[in-house]
Amino acid sequence: MIEKVRTKIDFDTILHNVREKSPIIHNITNYVTVNDCANILLACGASPIMADDIEEVSEITSLCGGLNINIGTLNHNSVKSMLAAGKRANELGHPAVLDPVGAGASRLRTETALKLIDEIRFDVIRGNISEIKTLAAVGSKDLAAGASGDSAVGSTKGVDADIADKVTEENLDSAVAFVKEFSERTGAVIAVTGAIDIVAGDGTAYIIRNGHPMMSSITGTGCQLSALTAAFVTANRDCVLGAAAAAVIAMGVCGETAFKRLGELDGNATYRNYIIDAVYRLTPEDLKRGADYEMR
Amino acid sequence: MIEKVRTKIDFDTILHNVREKSPIIHNITNYVTVNDCANILLACGASPIMADDIEEVSEITSLCGGLNINIGTLNHNSVKSMLAAGKRANELGHPAVLDPVGAGASRLRTETALKLIDEIRFDVIRGNISEIKTLAAVGSKDLAAGASGDSAVGSTKGVDADIADKVTEENLDSAVAFVKEFSERTGAVIAVTGAIDIVAGDGTAYIIRNGHPMMSSITGTGCQLSALTAAFVTANRDCVLGAAAAAVIAMGVCGETAFKRLGELDGNATYRNYIIDAVYRLTPEDLKRGADYEMR
Amino acid sequence: MIEKVRTKIDFDTILHNVREKSPIIHNITNYVTVNDCANILLACGASPIMADDIEEVSEITSLCGGLNINIGTLNHNSVKSMLAAGKRANELGHPAVLDPVGAGASRLRTETALKLIDEIRFDVIRGNISEIKTLAAVGSKDLAAGASGDSAVGSTKGVDADIADKVTEENLDSAVAFVKEFSERTGAVIAVTGAIDIVAGDGTAYIIRNGHPMMSSITGTGCQLSALTAAFVTANRDCVLGAAAAAVIAMGVCGETAFKRLGELDGNATYRNYIIDAVYRLTPEDLKRGADYEMR
Repeated sequence: MIEKVRTKIDFDTILHNVREKSPIIHNITNYVTVNDCANILLACGASPIMADDIEEVSEITSLCGGLNINIGTLNHNSVKSMLAAGKRANELGHPAVLDPVGAGASRLRTETALKLIDEIRFDVIRGNISEIKTLAAVGSKDLAAGASGDSAVGSTKGVDADIADKVTEENLDSAVAFVKEFSERTGAVIAVTGAIDIVAGDGTAYIIRNGHPMMSSITGTGCQLSALTAAFVTANRDCVLGAAAAAVIAMGVCGETAFKRLGELDGNATYRNYIIDAVYRLTPEDLKRGADYEMR
Repeated sequence: MIEKVRTKIDFDTILHNVREKSPIIHNITNYVTVNDCANILLACGASPIMADDIEEVSEITSLCGGLNINIGTLNHNSVKSMLAAGKRANELGHPAVLDPVGAGASRLRTETALKLIDEIRFDVIRGNISEIKTLAAVGSKDLAAGASGDSAVGSTKGVDADIADKVTEENLDSAVAFVKEFSERTGAVIAVTGAIDIVAGDGTAYIIRNGHPMMSSITGTGCQLSALTAAFVTANRDCVLGAAAAAVIAMGVCGETAFKRLGELDGNATYRNYIIDAVYRLTPEDLKRGADYEMR
Repeated sequence: MIEKVRTKIDFDTILHNVREKSPIIHNITNYVTVNDCANILLACGASPIMADDIEEVSEITSLCGGLNINIGTLNHNSVKSMLAAGKRANELGHPAVLDPVGAGASRLRTETALKLIDEIRFDVIRGNISEIKTLAAVGSKDLAAGASGDSAVGSTKGVDADIADKVTEENLDSAVAFVKEFSERTGAVIAVTGAIDIVAGDGTAYIIRNGHPMMSSITGTGCQLSALTAAFVTANRDCVLGAAAAAVIAMGVCGETAFKRLGELDGNATYRNYIIDAVYRLTPEDLKRGADYEMR
C-alpha cells in the first residue's frame, strides 16, 4: 500500500521566491513568542506586521500578502480580530495560516479554532498531533452536521483525553491517513509537526524527519514555524503543499544546523538564537543537502 | 541571638523532582518578560502555559500542576483572571506563586497585590524588598482589621516612600525578622531577593548570597525566578520552603556561572541568554558546589 | 545654501548624564519588541517601567523621569492610556517621545499618531521617513485648520501611497528641509531614521551616516532607538536636540560595533543581542571615534 517515493521539492525556486518577493505577513499571534516570530520572518527574507485591534486588522490584512493566525494567548478581542482578518484575507485571495495553539486545552481554544476553520478558508493549518486530533475529533460531528463549533463544547476535554498522540514509525501509516483525511475535510494543507512531521494536501503527504529533539526545549518553535510557513506559502502561491513542506523542512534543517553550533555551556536560549540565525543564513543548498523526506 | 547554621537543602531530590515530574505551570504574567519566563521554565525541565482570558483560566489552571501570577503589566481583565485562576488553584490544592511586580509604584498594583493575597492562599510570594515592605506596611492595617485592600488606597505612595530598602549585612537581622513576620501573617513562604536574598517560612529563614550584581541589568530576572520557583515548588510539594530556597539559589548560581562565560564585548543581552542556558545545564552538583546560604 | 559644518556633540556629558542620572522611563509600547526596549534601556544605564492600564498610567508617569509612547500594537485601551500618560508628562514637564509605528498603514495608526501630536507636546518624534511623511502630509491640513486628526480619515491611505520614501544623498537637501519644516510645525525634535538619519530641531539638522543595513533585519531596532532616545533626552533636558542626535548616533555606532563581532554562522538573532551588548559596553570614546555626522 505504501509506496516510498523520494519526490523532489524545488527548494531553489521556493526559497528564491521568499527572498525575492519578501512577502509582508500580517500576524495575529500570542505575546509569548511574537518577537521570535517577527525575527524569523525577517530572517527568511519576509517582513512582519503585528496588529490585532479590530479597528485596523482588515486594513492591515489588505496591505499584506499573507495572514498568520495563532491562538496562543487568545482573548475575547483578538478572536474577533482573527475572524475579521481571516475573512478579509479570503476575500482578497491572500494565503492564510492557522496555528491552533492549545486546542484541546480549553473550550475557548478548541471552539475558537473550530470557528476559525468553519468561517475562514485556511491554506495551511499547522499544529502538533494532539491539537490536530482534537480539532478533527470534535470537528467531525460539527462539520458533518453543518453546525458551528459552539455545539462541540461538551466533548472538548474528553476528546483531548481520548486521543493517542505521538507519531512514530509504528503508527505512521494510520497517522498519515488521518492527516490526509483531515486535509480533505478542511480543504487545507495540514502540517502536523513533532519528531516525525506530516504535511498533507491534495491526497499527498510528505513525511519529514528533520529537526532535533532539543527544539522542544525552546518556547515557540511551533509558532515560528507557522510564521515561516505563512511566508513560504505567500511567496509560492502556485505550490502551497510544496511550500508548506519546504518551510517544515527548513525549520528542521535549521534546528539541526543550530544544534551543531552549540557548545557544552549552551542551552535553550542560545539554541533559540542559533536557529533564527540559521534561517537567516539558509541557502537552497542547505535544504537540498539536509532535507530528509519522503512522499506517500 | 543569631545562630549561623549551615543546613543542607536536598538539591539532588529537589532538582530531580523538577526534571522528572516536569510540572506544567500556568503563568498569568506580563508581556515584557513572558518569553524569558517560558524559556526558563523549559530550561529547568518544566512546561509553561500562558493563558489570561477569563473564559479559559480556570480550565488551564486545572490541567496544570502549579500557578504563577505576576502583576508586571496588569490590567482590568487580567486581574479578574488572576483571581479566578488563583481560586481554582486553591480549590485543587495546586501551588500558587505571586510576584507583586511594582507594588508601591501605583495604587492599582498595591491594591491588586493585596487583594490577591487576601483572596488567594499563596505558597510563595517573591518580590524585591520594596515591594514586600509596601505590602506588609499597607496590608498590616487591612489584615488586622479584616478589610480588603481597597481601603488602603490613601497611604500606598506614602508607604512606598517611608520604607527603607536594601538588605545589607548591617540590617540583616531586622530584615530577617520582618520577612519571617510577614510570612507568618500571610501563611506564605516569602522570598525577598536582592544582593542578599531572604527566603522565610515556618519560622525559619534561609539567607542566600548567590547571584551577581549584573543580573539587575537584565529585565525580568525576578520574573524568571518567580516562574522557576513555581516549577520547583510544584515538583516538591512536601518541602515548599526548601524548594523555594533552592530556586533562589539556582537562579543565583546560574547568574554566577553565566557571568563567568561573558567576554569583554558581551553585555546584558548575552548575559540574559547565558543565565537561561545555565539553568538548562544545571546539575545538583552545581548547586551543591555553588550554594552560599545559611539558616537563621 | 547648504553649509557643511562639523559641529561637535558633547558625547561625554550626554552619556555621563544617562549613566549617572539613570532616568526611569515609562514605556507604553508594543508587545512585539517590548523586551528589547526594556533591555536596551537597562543597557544604556536607564531604568524601564512598562505600564499601560488607564488606572495606573498617570501615577507611573509621575514617578518616572520620561515617557516613551510607541503605537506598534495599539488598541482601543492603550490609546486612552497613551493620551492620559502624555498629558500627565506635559503637566509635569517630563520629556515625551513618540514612535508612530506604522502611521500610514491603517487609519487607526495615522489618526492615533495625529491625535497624540495634537493633544500632547512631544520633545521628540522618531520614525521612518514614510511614517513621518504620512503624518506631515495628513497633518498639514489639520494643523493649519486647527482640526483634530479625526477629520483626516479620508486621505490617509492615499497619502501613504503618494509619498516618496528613501532618503538618499540625491534627495537629502529636500528631505532635510522637509524634516526641519515638520519640526517647526510640531515644535518637536524630529528624528527620521534609515540609511541616512536626519535629526532636526531649532532650525538645525544633524545628518547621521552611522549604522548598518543589516539592522533592518532585526525587528524593533527603531523601537529600541525610541526608548534609548527617551533615556538620553530625559537625562539631558537642557539639550534635547543634541541628546536625540546622540541617541541616534549611539544606536548606529552600536550597530556597527555589533556587526563586526558577527561570525559567518551568525544571523539577525545574534546580531540583536550584540547590539544591545554594545550599548551596554558603550563609552564616550566609542561615540567620539565612531560618530559620522554633520550639521546643516
